[in-house]
Parts: sequence; structure tokens; C-alpha cells
Amino acid sequence: MKLSILFGGASFEHEISIVSAITLKAKLDRHDLSFIFCDTDHTFYLIDASSMKATTFSRGEYKKMPVINLINGAFVQKSMFKSSENRNVVLNLIHGADGEDGTIAALLDFYSINYIGPRVSASVFSYDKRYTKWLCDAKKIPSVSYEILNHDIQKDITLPLPVIVKPSSLGSSIGVSIVREMSELDYALDTAYEYDTSVIVEPFIENVKEYNLAGYSYKGEMKYSIIEEPQKEEFLDFEKKYMDFSRSESVLKADISRELEQKLKAMFDKVYKNMFEGALIRCDFFVVDGEVLLNEINPIPGSMANYLFEDFSQALEDLSSSLPSEKKIKVNYEYIHSINSAKGK
Amino acid sequence: MKLSILFGGASFEHEISIVSAITLKAKLDRHDLSFIFCDTDHTFYLIDASSMKATTFSRGEYKKMPVINLINGAFVQKSMFKSSENRNVVLNLIHGADGEDGTIAALLDFYSINYIGPRVSASVFSYDKRYTKWLCDAKKIPSVSYEILNHDIQKDITLPLPVIVKPSSLGSSIGVSIVREMSELDYALDTAYEYDTSVIVEPFIENVKEYNLAGYSYKGEMKYSIIEEPQKEEFLDFEKKYMDFSRSESVLKADISRELEQKLKAMFDKVYKNMFEGALIRCDFFVVDGEVLLNEINPIPGSMANYLFEDFSQALEDLSSSLPSEKKIKVNYEYIHSINSAKGK
Repeated sequence: MKLSILFGGASFEHEISIVSAITLKAKLDRHDLSFIFCDTDHTFYLIDASSMKATTFSRGEYKKMPVINLINGAFVQKSMFKSSENRNVVLNLIHGADGEDGTIAALLDFYSINYIGPRVSASVFSYDKRYTKWLCDAKKIPSVSYEILNHDIQKDITLPLPVIVKPSSLGSSIGVSIVREMSELDYALDTAYEYDTSVIVEPFIENVKEYNLAGYSYKGEMKYSIIEEPQKEEFLDFEKKYMDFSRSESVLKADISRELEQKLKAMFDKVYKNMFEGALIRCDFFVVDGEVLLNEINPIPGSMANYLFEDFSQALEDLSSSLPSEKKIKVNYEYIHSINSAKGK
Repeated sequence: MKLSILFGGASFEHEISIVSAITLKAKLDRHDLSFIFCDTDHTFYLIDASSMKATTFSRGEYKKMPVINLINGAFVQKSMFKSSENRNVVLNLIHGADGEDGTIAALLDFYSINYIGPRVSASVFSYDKRYTKWLCDAKKIPSVSYEILNHDIQKDITLPLPVIVKPSSLGSSIGVSIVREMSELDYALDTAYEYDTSVIVEPFIENVKEYNLAGYSYKGEMKYSIIEEPQKEEFLDFEKKYMDFSRSESVLKADISRELEQKLKAMFDKVYKNMFEGALIRCDFFVVDGEVLLNEINPIPGSMANYLFEDFSQALEDLSSSLPSEKKIKVNYEYIHSINSAKGK
């Protein structure tokens, strides 16, 4: 299968996207891959597979590689005498802004390029944690209670401590703090407001049971990964999360009852259906007093959560052959014609 | 003020966007306007002001005009020996798909072009009527009760007749029917499913009082149009709505109490704030038994509802000088550097 991995982006998660792409290069060695790097100025570069290492980007060496542009149906590389087109399915691997906020989805939609990744609406509902809560309310999906604060409105929090403070619209634990004493709150809020004008506050639940499940829809049927109980510390700081994005070793299946497994899958379905088609997503769940709560939706998980799938290559082939398609709209100017003829023109 | 009017798009409302643009050309004659047409293949053309008439498009004459492309910060016209850049603020006047679904917003965001119009999230919450209901629930905005039907799931409606049946994601009354008897339901659903896989059903309220109010935020302060009580028939069919998009005559202010006016404005505020900044929107309200209900959000109303504003030119100048701006994200590759140095590279 031919696949173009699109990575980088103008995002706080730019560097972990590079790590994700390098990880997938190793994981998908039986595919015919090409690599498209989006720099922070939104220029696209075609990166030779042999140059897919971190220093190509950190040292700016990518700037010597061919610039490519979008045209209808393809990325195109133009030189003096010829132009070559890349019409592969694109794997959107840009984490955070650009990739997960709907920008890249809309861009690829506009240029009629097939891609694996969340569509525009799905991106809006997963990128901003406020809208994930709206989705949960609308679909009756239990989640952790929360409060929203805005940088321009002075408001006290009403949730009892400890709480976890997060910018509304970032992933990868950037700007996230745990607040155990009121004296820590201002600093936590300032940190979060560095990244967003809106902040979400949730109760911090000690020793919560956490389970991760990834999956996708293949021709209308849900395909699930194994369920993992992440072995982690209180929460991952950015550097640990960064390393986490380079995971490629398979993990052990969580030791849970069949009943809990069914509950997690059923909730995953509710999140996914009529929203995330075309994407492989990972949902992170909490179990509190026997109740399953949705913690977070990752519409483009680090290295696509390859380590949760027995056959990750097959997952991508499934997805490629089952992407949402748009009906082409035809315009025949019948209204303009009929109005002009009514006017006698 | 310089302004580029972007119109057309691959949308069922393509033709009414052309009408809207022609109407604004006449209305904004004291501005320095340029006209950018997006055809249904997503090619952009720079249209000479003298060619801004319906037949330029219906006869395909626009294809002889210069093609322009997006680069960072501008639309650019390239010829053999020179290229000229258009860096004006763009007025997104593409109604329906592309313009109102977030696609054009994301495209202009990606290329760092300033524009008047809804951002990506705002588009998602106004284009799809299901998500408008989620917005209403989250912001505690009263709206008409509803049911959602999907084309692949057989389900009976439970609302009593008469009902109004609409595709979830179109404007301009396309695919909309009123159902007074059960025998009419299947045809109404088939009609709506022509345009969307999801359909929204609402009670049809006879002789409902309807009020339209437009507005925008200027440096944090809301600016409102007059409130209109639209003099209309049961509902506008497409051809009538089409003519409606060419309105440019000012209308009479609705004869309503100061109290109702305040209620409508307060509800408009709730819809607009932290969502529609950068756009001039029109909200259509119902008043039923003294209660104000939100009926619809038009994030790009026909001819931008110019006829509701005393000084529409000023409104656009206000908006242009008060557009949302994104913080530029800088990447310094510190994580890659620190990990490489830890590895001794």
C-alpha cells in the first residue's frame, strides 16, 4: 500500500509529530511510504525516507528538500521542466494544532485528497475539551465533572481540591497542572493560560483506574485494539509523553472482566459513530466506583497507538479502503437561467 | 477600505452566493473591492468588477479570467514575468458547504489570511443543525424541540404533526418540507435525504412570530442591527430565498416592546460570545407563548443582511479592524536537542 505520512505543523506538538512519523517509518516498513513535512510556516516539503531522523528537522536541513504544493487531488512537485504528482492516501499525523483542530482536514477535503484522520467536525469536538463535554452531554456519555474558566473573566473555582487544570485545547499534557492547595491555583491557571484563553478544571482523582482503547470503523463495522491499562505516573509531563510517542513495542492486554471490556467498547462506539469515520482514534477512560467515564478522545494518538494493535499495517489498509467520501456537487445555473429568462435577458 | 469578496464554492448555494456578491458590489460602492470566485472544482479566479454579473458565471465566461492561488498571506496571480499579490482582508461570502462548514475558514487560517466570517468551530456549530442544538443545550439557550433521523436507521418520528423536516446541514430552505399528514412523511424524508444522511424534525408552529437580528463584536462590544419581523410566507422556497439574497433596501424596524428587544439581544449575545468573533451573523428567533426560542444561526447571511444595518459599510470596517488573531507558535526543537544530547548524539 502507498501512503503519505503528513507530519510537523504549526503546533506545540510539532516535535512529537516528528517522533511519531519516525516511529511509524520503522513500524510500517512493508509499505511504500512517502513523507510530507509541514513546517511552522505552512510550507510542505517532500522528505526522503533516508532523511527521516530528528536532526533533519532540528538542524533545518529539511529546507534543502523539494517544496511541494497542493492541487486538486494531489501534492505536486514542480521543477523547471517537469512536475510530479503524489496522489497517495495521506495519513494525517500532525498532533495538536493544525492536525487535530480541523485545519488540515479541511485543507485535504478542499483539495479532494483522501486521508486517514478525523474530519473537520470530529476535530472540533475532540480538540477542544469544552466541546468534548458538549458531545458527552448530547450522546449521554458519562465523563468527569468540570468547570470552564476564561482568562478575561475573574471567577473562583467551586470544585473541591485536588483538581487538575488544563488548557481547553491542547493535548500531550502541555500546560497541565495538578492543584492540591489553593496557593498553587494561580500559578496553574497562569501556566494553562499561556496556551489557551480558556481553561478546564476537573477533580483530580487519586489512583484512578485508567484504560485506553483504540479503534476504527471498517465498512461500517467497529474494529478494536486491545485494551491497555497504562502503567504511568501521576500524569505524564511533556518529556515523558514525548518518549511515549515513540512507542512501538506491543503491550499487554489489561486484566479486566469481560463485562468491563464490553462497557468500554460500547462507550467507544458511542463516541465514534457518525463522527470519527475515517480516523483511528484512542479513547482514554477512567473507572471510578465501577462507573466508566470518558476522560479524553485522541483523534490522532501518538504513533497512532500502533502498539495496541496486533496487525497495525492491516488496520491502516482497512482504513484506507473505507474512507468517507463526499458527493460531488454539480451546479447547472438553473436559477440564474430561469431568473434571467423571466427578466427577458 | 480594501476588501476581497470571496464567493461561489462547491455548494448547493453556489448560485445564491453569486447573487449575494453582486448585491454587495452595488451596496459597497465606496470601497475598493476585488472579487474572488471559487468554482465548483475549487479553482480561484480573480473577477474584474465590470464582469460581476450572473451571466459571467452561468455562461462559463469566468474561465477566461486570471487563476489565482493561495500562498502564505495572500492570493497570488502568476504570469510569465511577474506575480501580483492580493493581501486584502477577505470577506467570506460562500454560503452553504465550503463557506459555512469550516472549510474556507480553515484554508484562510492555514494561509494566514485575515477574513471576515465564522472560524472553524463556529462553522461546525452553525452549519449542522444537530450541533446547533448541542450548542443551545450547553449554553442554556431555549430552542424548538427536535428529533434526529439517520438514513441508515429505520425510526418513527414521535413528534405530533405538523412537523418540519430539514436536512441537518443545509441552509436556504433546500430540501425542507412541512408534513401535515403521515402520508406526506416518506416523501419529505426522501427529499431531505437527497442532501444529507441526517435529518432534523421539529414541530411546525403555525403563525409563529419570527424575528431576525444580526450583529457582530467590535473590540469586545456587541453591535446590533435593527430587529426585523420578516414578512414571509409559510416558508421560503429556494427561488424566493434566492431573490431574498439580493435584498439591499433597508427594512422597517419590528414594532416590539423594549423588553422583547432586550431579550432577543441577550440571547444573541449568548450565541455569539466566545464562538462567532470575526463574523457578522444573523440569528432567527421564534416567540412562542411569550418565550424566545433560537430557530437558526446564519453565520454568513444572504448579502450579509446588509438591509438590517443603518451603515453596513461601517459594520464591515469595524469588523476588519477587530478580527481574531492567532498567536504564532515558535518551535525551537528543544526536546529533540535535549533527547539527542542525552543519547550522546
